[in-house]
Amino acid sequence: MYDELEGKQVVQEDDAAIQQPIIRQMVVQLRAMDSYGTYDTWSDARVLDPLVLTKERRRAIPVVGDPDETTLSRVRAYYNAIAQMLERETGLLAVPVINISHEGFGRALILVGKLVALDKTLRDVHRFGFASLDALIAEAEKSLVQAAGMVSEHRAVAEL
Amino acid sequence: MYDELEGKQVVQEDDAAIQQPIIRQMVVQLRAMDSYGTYDTWSDARVLDPLVLTKERRRAIPVVGDPDETTLSRVRAYYNAIAQMLERETGLLAVPVINISHEGFGRALILVGKLVALDKTLRDVHRFGFASLDALIAEAEKSLVQAAGMVSEHRAVAEL
Repeated sequence: MYDELEGKQVVQEDDAAIQQPIIRQMVVQLRAMDSYGTYDTWSDARVLDPLVLTKERRRAIPVVGDPDETTLSRVRAYYNAIAQMLERETGLLAVPVINISHEGFGRALILVGKLVALDKTLRDVHRFGFASLDALIAEAEKSLVQAAGMVSEHRAVAEL
Repeated sequence: MYDELEGKQVVQEDDAAIQQPIIRQMVVQLRAMDSYGTYDTWSDARVLDPLVLTKERRRAIPVVGDPDETTLSRVRAYYNAIAQMLERETGLLAVPVINISHEGFGRALILVGKLVALDKTLRDVHRFGFASLDALIAEAEKSLVQAAGMVSEHRAVAEL
């Protein structure tokens, strides 16, 4: 992983972004999926750190074979977090469905009732990450606004 | 597989059900996924045969570990076939999304635009099959009617 490759943590411990709701939710999701307890002694900044891909980190990740489970869990954490936020905003159950083929391509859906509230094509899942936590927040917010818009426009289908 | 276990083919070569549209479509789908050309010399009846699970066959299938690729391809062929029929009926693109966890549980969706036209919980995928081809047709028809009903009721979302 990049931790070993790069050594240096990119996300600063006092990064204000860590306090943003979507990032708080990401931390909750990532810790929830950490069945081996690897993150138990890690700060939130360190848990989030591999999601930030600098150019150097991006280049260092080989895009061969299947994305590993740790990478997949980050993709899941991200869409779980958006789904959670969407639930709060709409008051309706939001279910993330992540479908990743063996080559790192796939689709991320968030379903609300019988409505596909969010539908993202996934490419290059091996390199799932963002330029910064702020970039992650901006991207997630955009998806959230889009999904919430879909739900309010087609509320009847979302309530099915 | 059951072929080896049971030896005897259950689906008769002259079974009238083989001529039904949904079964024709299943044959097309199954042959399309047969990348090794195993089915090249097989009759349609033989290709379809493993989908018919008699009580004895059902009992003979171990439900441990992950369902194998051949079983998964049958599940995909079934929902692809329903999606194809739904396209013909509605004139809209229908996309099957099959999500199967490692233990043989999962979800089969058919999406039309932003509408979840079909949503099936999958259990015990190891033993995916039907009592007879007629039972398969009846089950597929039921899903098709349900999905087509959803599309005509929520056509605006299906057209997104």
